[in-house]
Amino acid sequence: MPRLVMKFGGTSVADIDRIRNVARKVKREVENGFDVIVIVSAMSGKTNELVGWVDSISPLYDAREYDAIVSSGENVTAGLLALALQEYDVPARSWQGWQVPVITTSAHGAARIEDIPTANLDAKFAEGMKVAVVAGFQGLAPDGRITTLGRGGSDTTAVAFAAAMQAQRCDIYTDVDGVYTADPRITDKARKLNRISYEEMLELASLGAKVLQTRSVELAMRYRVRLRVLSSFEESNETSGTLVCDEEEIMESNVVSGVAHSRDEAKMTLVSVADRPGIAAAIFMPLAEAGVNVDMIVQNISEDGRTDMTFSCPTNQVARAEKAMEAAKAKGSINFRDLIADKNVCKISVVGIGMRSHAGVAARMFEALAAEGVNIKVITTSEIKVSVLVDRKYMELAVQALHDAFELDNAA
Amino acid sequence: MPRLVMKFGGTSVADIDRIRNVARKVKREVENGFDVIVIVSAMSGKTNELVGWVDSISPLYDAREYDAIVSSGENVTAGLLALALQEYDVPARSWQGWQVPVITTSAHGAARIEDIPTANLDAKFAEGMKVAVVAGFQGLAPDGRITTLGRGGSDTTAVAFAAAMQAQRCDIYTDVDGVYTADPRITDKARKLNRISYEEMLELASLGAKVLQTRSVELAMRYRVRLRVLSSFEESNETSGTLVCDEEEIMESNVVSGVAHSRDEAKMTLVSVADRPGIAAAIFMPLAEAGVNVDMIVQNISEDGRTDMTFSCPTNQVARAEKAMEAAKAKGSINFRDLIADKNVCKISVVGIGMRSHAGVAARMFEALAAEGVNIKVITTSEIKVSVLVDRKYMELAVQALHDAFELDNAA
Repeated sequence: MPRLVMKFGGTSVADIDRIRNVARKVKREVENGFDVIVIVSAMSGKTNELVGWVDSISPLYDAREYDAIVSSGENVTAGLLALALQEYDVPARSWQGWQVPVITTSAHGAARIEDIPTANLDAKFAEGMKVAVVAGFQGLAPDGRITTLGRGGSDTTAVAFAAAMQAQRCDIYTDVDGVYTADPRITDKARKLNRISYEEMLELASLGAKVLQTRSVELAMRYRVRLRVLSSFEESNETSGTLVCDEEEIMESNVVSGVAHSRDEAKMTLVSVADRPGIAAAIFMPLAEAGVNVDMIVQNISEDGRTDMTFSCPTNQVARAEKAMEAAKAKGSINFRDLIADKNVCKISVVGIGMRSHAGVAARMFEALAAEGVNIKVITTSEIKVSVLVDRKYMELAVQALHDAFELDNAA
Repeated sequence: MPRLVMKFGGTSVADIDRIRNVARKVKREVENGFDVIVIVSAMSGKTNELVGWVDSISPLYDAREYDAIVSSGENVTAGLLALALQEYDVPARSWQGWQVPVITTSAHGAARIEDIPTANLDAKFAEGMKVAVVAGFQGLAPDGRITTLGRGGSDTTAVAFAAAMQAQRCDIYTDVDGVYTADPRITDKARKLNRISYEEMLELASLGAKVLQTRSVELAMRYRVRLRVLSSFEESNETSGTLVCDEEEIMESNVVSGVAHSRDEAKMTLVSVADRPGIAAAIFMPLAEAGVNVDMIVQNISEDGRTDMTFSCPTNQVARAEKAMEAAKAKGSINFRDLIADKNVCKISVVGIGMRSHAGVAARMFEALAAEGVNIKVITTSEIKVSVLVDRKYMELAVQALHDAFELDNAA
């Protein structure tokens, strides 16, 4: 039997009616001839309830207990969905992480899946089970304690199961019906993509298109798991949603696939830093140790042995970054005249595997922004992406201008 | 280190403040020099929420899924209490049933504990753990699936752990402060007992004094586990509550220890049953198969080859009993003229190990009831108990009269 992995997030299983709706979708795939592995999240709101209790008892909680408590939400959904499937005469049973087992590292609260031995599931499928409902987001540490993979870990669970069980595809059901060329709330010309490559999806995921967890896309790319994103609230068929797949499966692609934006960016500049070998490490090591997620880094030309160093980070980490820099200055490991934080920026990116073979994407981007009078503050590029920081007030304008400039409203 | 088992029910852990209160009580026992095993129930209301979801998805649910879902409530409490203890600097960790493991039969929803290997807990106590917080009411079936012991199973879990871990005592914290000579809501002369024997407690438990689960008392008697019942909402010390223990630990005992009552009884009479060998089996086998919990059975003398058969059962099982009897009649396996159900009765019992060696307890009981004009409808006796069915309107009167007649307000 071909196998299919289906994953449903918290809003898709938020109440009994929605769980029944999920059961009907799963039953249809069984009727299509699949043995199905369903990965479920906790009912929407339940994880927050559990986390709230933990926080109020023990703000600096033992992560092992946190995991034991919070994982219970997914266990409940798994059991309820198995019952709903049985009501539709589908042979189904629930599996908690330790029962499969999903073997993880012991990094509680942020564990990584190490292995999913398939013997237990294989045996039950051979005995006639048609659906294995697996509690997502959790696993078993080497010492026999329960781990969680951290928020969004259910996507990762789904992809890992698809790889381990050699599933034909991994369908991620969510509250949007696919991946778009831009945020439809910003430009009504945004168009749903039928297919997108792993590399592009990875850039989009990390750029704030909150459709898929970055880690799950990485894992899918590594194991060549065909990933489909589709809506759990609409009727669907074989061609619904967006397929995230290997470049080679995408017949013809646009130079640029999409325009992404991120509101939650701040620009920080260390003014007049002594320019010497090792200065970058002296700056970014303390930031890393302080847990600041530095994204873009730009170093201007040096003059009189001094330079300006600019980087971006999430807005809510600005205070932490400032503290780390002042501490490094006090320790004498770095020296700067001023530290300027600009929280009033946003990041706009164009992403596309096509730009590898097409020159001039960056130039066309800058031209389109200039034509609208949008001033660019910082630029970085990667192989399939060009990102800029601009004033936040230009965000919508910039997205719309770039969507037009790269003709993203025309299907490839 | 001497070991102590402490058990807290759902109302004792109903919210975060109460969980902290429980943690303080546990910490005190650690300071008293104990290694402690705490057995917890789900937070009050949580089990009902989970059961409600199960019922609304699948009224005739798969008991294996029911167990997987419902057991999550205890897991949450165990984790939260472990965190609360850590906040009070007590080295504690949570244990789910499968982690200990608590090995049970595979009778899902009503499993029995078969074994509790102590190696895992022993090793952690040796490493410095002072408190093991165990999720009650659950275990692991031979096939690796989760079982539950049925309602009230947390008491049984506690006693089983006390036996397996050779604990010095098993303290059952509840919302009453001990076992009384009668229900204090019925007679204000009711007096808390300092000690009571297993046998007496067993009779009282099965007679509707809802302090302890019958099965847990049976288990305690079998393994000679000293059981203490006390309040989780009051300050307590070494002599609080009621100790349920071996007869030999009770220096001097009253003839009668207590007067129990049960409101939830119905009397059913099969009128004019053909009296032949095997007729009792022909009546009570179908009742057992229908799940009717028959309590008292009385067969009157036979006349002209016919007799009347009377039995009692819980009020809410009357319809089921009637159906089973009509079906047996239709099948021809029994024959009766009429079936009379009287839901307007109650059961009053006097219990005491002292009555073994004292004649006349029953006579004194009947005399006291007669003096108040209470008519007795059915009588049964056991070695340490005399029970009668009387009209429900006499319940309070009967309890008070018997409490006085046996001078239960005087300490032994």
